[in-house]
Amino acid sequence: MPVVHVFVWKGMSGEAKRKVIAGITKTFTDLGIPEQAVEVIIQEIPKEDWGIAGLPASEKLRDVMPP
Amino acid sequence: MPVVHVFVWKGMSGEAKRKVIAGITKTFTDLGIPEQAVEVIIQEIPKEDWGIAGLPASEKLRDVMPP
Amino acid sequence: MPVVHVFVWKGMSGEAKRKVIAGITKTFTDLGIPEQAVEVIIQEIPKEDWGIAGLPASEKLRDVMPP
Amino acid sequence: MPVVHVFVWKGMSGEAKRKVIAGITKTFTDLGIPEQAVEVIIQEIPKEDWGIAGLPASEKLRDVMPP
Amino acid sequence: MPVVHVFVWKGMSGEAKRKVIAGITKTFTDLGIPEQAVEVIIQEIPKEDWGIAGLPASEKLRDVMPP
Amino acid sequence: MPVVHVFVWKGMSGEAKRKVIAGITKTFTDLGIPEQAVEVIIQEIPKEDWGIAGLPASEKLRDVMPP
Repeated sequence: MPVVHVFVWKGMSGEAKRKVIAGITKTFTDLGIPEQAVEVIIQEIPKEDWGIAGLPASEKLRDVMPP
Repeated sequence: MPVVHVFVWKGMSGEAKRKVIAGITKTFTDLGIPEQAVEVIIQEIPKEDWGIAGLPASEKLRDVMPP
Repeated sequence: MPVVHVFVWKGMSGEAKRKVIAGITKTFTDLGIPEQAVEVIIQEIPKEDWGIAGLPASEKLRDVMPP
Repeated sequence: MPVVHVFVWKGMSGEAKRKVIAGITKTFTDLGIPEQAVEVIIQEIPKEDWGIAGLPASEKLRDVMPP
Repeated sequence: MPVVHVFVWKGMSGEAKRKVIAGITKTFTDLGIPEQAVEVIIQEIPKEDWGIAGLPASEKLRDVMPP
Repeated sequence: MPVVHVFVWKGMSGEAKRKVIAGITKTFTDLGIPEQAVEVIIQEIPKEDWGIAGLPASEKLRDVMPP
């Protein structure tokens, strides 16, 4: 406890993923939860498979890229 | 709001995915929700990794294919 | 197949839920999937527990209500 | 993008939830993602319904409380 | 590792939940995974909020009850 | 009903997956649920994308492998 599932667009760098894991974990350790209790599961979703406003993000947000 | 997670077997065509995104989004806009508020995240699961009745779907439903 | 998880704010009416279930199911039957294969799981989240732009939706979007 | 699902034990305070939402959102804005793109969905699970090491957390971790 | 999310209809008894936690955990310890690494999160969904074949399970499967 | 989502590290063998599907399904049939009602969806997560104690499992648990 806690378990955190993160959904992002495919293409996030390894460095960005490390920061996501570290930052989310720190959010909970700041609340007094031991760090070994925090699990963060990142799942990358192709923009073609992520719909926003009725269209795939690969069309709707063609020029926006993951960090 | 809303966030919708869709799990389907791997192999769904791009055209079918577009219809899934459009159809689910329309379901919510018909209820008065603005389309830009609807996010649809599709995840494709290999049939080997989807169990039905105790067996992988790749065996249990060998001849059924995703649209 | 498919399994669809829907996350909405708490307070959606039973009538709206029925339309969500029917509309999402029809999206898949229109693709040739038999209706008995479609499962839709709706989860209502209190606005206090749904963060947008760093704040609970109960503050950020105080006046927006679920259908 | 991103969508973050957080699972914690039931009983987390409103103040702790606000910090979870703010901290996770900041993790992503630090990566250059606009804050309005970050959605955080917190779900509280009764300890009876959260198994660890084969037992409900209500027994296995009787004296540990959520923040 | 692993994390297991279980979705069932609302009304499952505490005894049945204990068996679900124990049985799923044993499935993984039989594979050599240490039991303390297995987390099982059970979420109960009202039958009104679980759609099957286009209808809420509360109508479609009126007489079926959770264990 | 039920729907079970299993998250494991990438690299689990096909034989182990079959045992996960069979074992989880049996857990529910032992409770009187018909086997055809049980769906198990396994998702494999690269160890780089699974954070434990603030670090990717690929670093924190470098020598632990999935079954």
